[in-house]
Amino acid sequence: MKVLRIGIVGYGNIGRGVEKALHNEPDMELAAVVTRREPKSLSIATPGVPVIGVEAALERKDIDVMILCGGSATDLIEQGPQFAATFNCVDSFDTHARIPEYYAAVNAVATNTTAMISCGWDPGLFSLMRVLGGAFLPVGCDATFWGEGVSQGHSDALRRIEGVVDATQYTVPIAEAMKLAREGKADQLDTRDKHRRLCYVVLEEGADEVAVRREIVTMPNYFADYETEVQFVSQAELNANHKKMPHGGFVFRSGRTGTSKQLMEFSLKLDSNPEFTGSVLVACARATARLAQAGKYGAVTMLDVPVGAFSPFNGAQLRENLL
Amino acid sequence: MKVLRIGIVGYGNIGRGVEKALHNEPDMELAAVVTRREPKSLSIATPGVPVIGVEAALERKDIDVMILCGGSATDLIEQGPQFAATFNCVDSFDTHARIPEYYAAVNAVATNTTAMISCGWDPGLFSLMRVLGGAFLPVGCDATFWGEGVSQGHSDALRRIEGVVDATQYTVPIAEAMKLAREGKADQLDTRDKHRRLCYVVLEEGADEVAVRREIVTMPNYFADYETEVQFVSQAELNANHKKMPHGGFVFRSGRTGTSKQLMEFSLKLDSNPEFTGSVLVACARATARLAQAGKYGAVTMLDVPVGAFSPFNGAQLRENLL
Repeated sequence: MKVLRIGIVGYGNIGRGVEKALHNEPDMELAAVVTRREPKSLSIATPGVPVIGVEAALERKDIDVMILCGGSATDLIEQGPQFAATFNCVDSFDTHARIPEYYAAVNAVATNTTAMISCGWDPGLFSLMRVLGGAFLPVGCDATFWGEGVSQGHSDALRRIEGVVDATQYTVPIAEAMKLAREGKADQLDTRDKHRRLCYVVLEEGADEVAVRREIVTMPNYFADYETEVQFVSQAELNANHKKMPHGGFVFRSGRTGTSKQLMEFSLKLDSNPEFTGSVLVACARATARLAQAGKYGAVTMLDVPVGAFSPFNGAQLRENLL
Repeated sequence: MKVLRIGIVGYGNIGRGVEKALHNEPDMELAAVVTRREPKSLSIATPGVPVIGVEAALERKDIDVMILCGGSATDLIEQGPQFAATFNCVDSFDTHARIPEYYAAVNAVATNTTAMISCGWDPGLFSLMRVLGGAFLPVGCDATFWGEGVSQGHSDALRRIEGVVDATQYTVPIAEAMKLAREGKADQLDTRDKHRRLCYVVLEEGADEVAVRREIVTMPNYFADYETEVQFVSQAELNANHKKMPHGGFVFRSGRTGTSKQLMEFSLKLDSNPEFTGSVLVACARATARLAQAGKYGAVTMLDVPVGAFSPFNGAQLRENLL
């Protein structure tokens, strides 16, 4: 078995999730961690693996797949095309509206490499479920719910409010809406019907509770369209109970064949969002290496690869044990 | 858009499910129904479509994909290799233990055709879930539960008992066992812990209830290993309440990343098992035609094809709308 040599670009929550996931994969090993910080300032969990800068990384010839673990908005939009010109890549670009543009930018440079973009669980695993749902039940409708889980974007929005020291936001799917989705009535649901938002907020001493609460619940895009609950807590309580990163969600496809009702339902319940994302990215790196080996260059997504290619097992093993 | 011309081989429950599913697919049309019965004796639901015998079918040049809708044990084992030598094929061969042997037999003749074997929901869609589960959570265990739904094989076994006129058997997953599977303890479960069997039986006049019940609950392979409940009902009640073909089931993958627990769960709730199976087979025919068009000949399974290939949409549409 050839062992794939993997590079991690960006050592935040996702990068550390990828690192942990690699410990569970006998056919892969961590070759290097790439950072834009001063490499010597970064201490990583895997002993003996070099930490290097971006320029040094671009010279490396011994890395089979680079897993890009930065954020979509500022990191990936630049690093995706930069690294895909030289390396097979996997990333978790998740700004849905900009995926076609990002795909085109990566595809343009990936002429001798394979770059799997927008991997993870949404986009990613949930996308697989939406496509399978639409293909197998073409007369029907689907619905995606997220949570209960921590939204980093919404937590960050809370922390930017004056008078807020720290905060955690949970996205909570509404049970009644999920019931309607199971019954095939998802098209009756507005955005605000599907999720509510639960905020745990630590105030600065002397901050105005009423004003902060008003600013939160009226914040456009983030909270104004939702039923939003705000609870003020101490920093100690936030640290003790709200610093983990659980998440999850549901994809429903409710459809009809003939006169029969049919329901497909997929769900994730994750104690650690970044660790699961890391684990998916690592399986995507395996699939990407296989595509590259077959000469299938360019930008691809998880929808473009046979499901068997994510697995460490070969076709005969899969047919015998998992089919 | 090229419209794919589809042949249905075998006009039982699955064949009729495929026929209904084709009505929902703008990119496919029914070209012929193939039967081993006297063609003139068969009346089908789609007007204007010819019903032909097997020999006539093998001469047809205008069929893009044949969907083989016979049973595994006696029909497919022979028809699979017979048709795959000439046509692109899709079938639902579901005798798990014989899949490697069947794959080899079909693969040997499919030198200029593509034959997707063992399609449907199990094997098929559930297999996709088991492979995704193992790839994304390599440290963990999976469990598959079936039901609540009608098992044709077990219903047939009941009908073969002397004194039984008619019968329907429901396979029922046990809630406590599903709870353990969600907690990652599926390896503690024996066969008999996972499902119970519920039998509705119509007796011949004068048949011995006690003897029939004893024969059922002690029948090896089918019932002896399970908690089995037998209810005697009238033919009228069986006809009114137990002649539909609902089914469904669950695939769990419970795993760990780092020190976090993670759970993937997929389920189906089907009012009509053969109609859903038919709908999956039709999407598999689309994927099979695409593989054949790309020159990827031989036997394949649903694990060997990109998920996007099951969909009527192209890559750009999928990235924009479903990713």
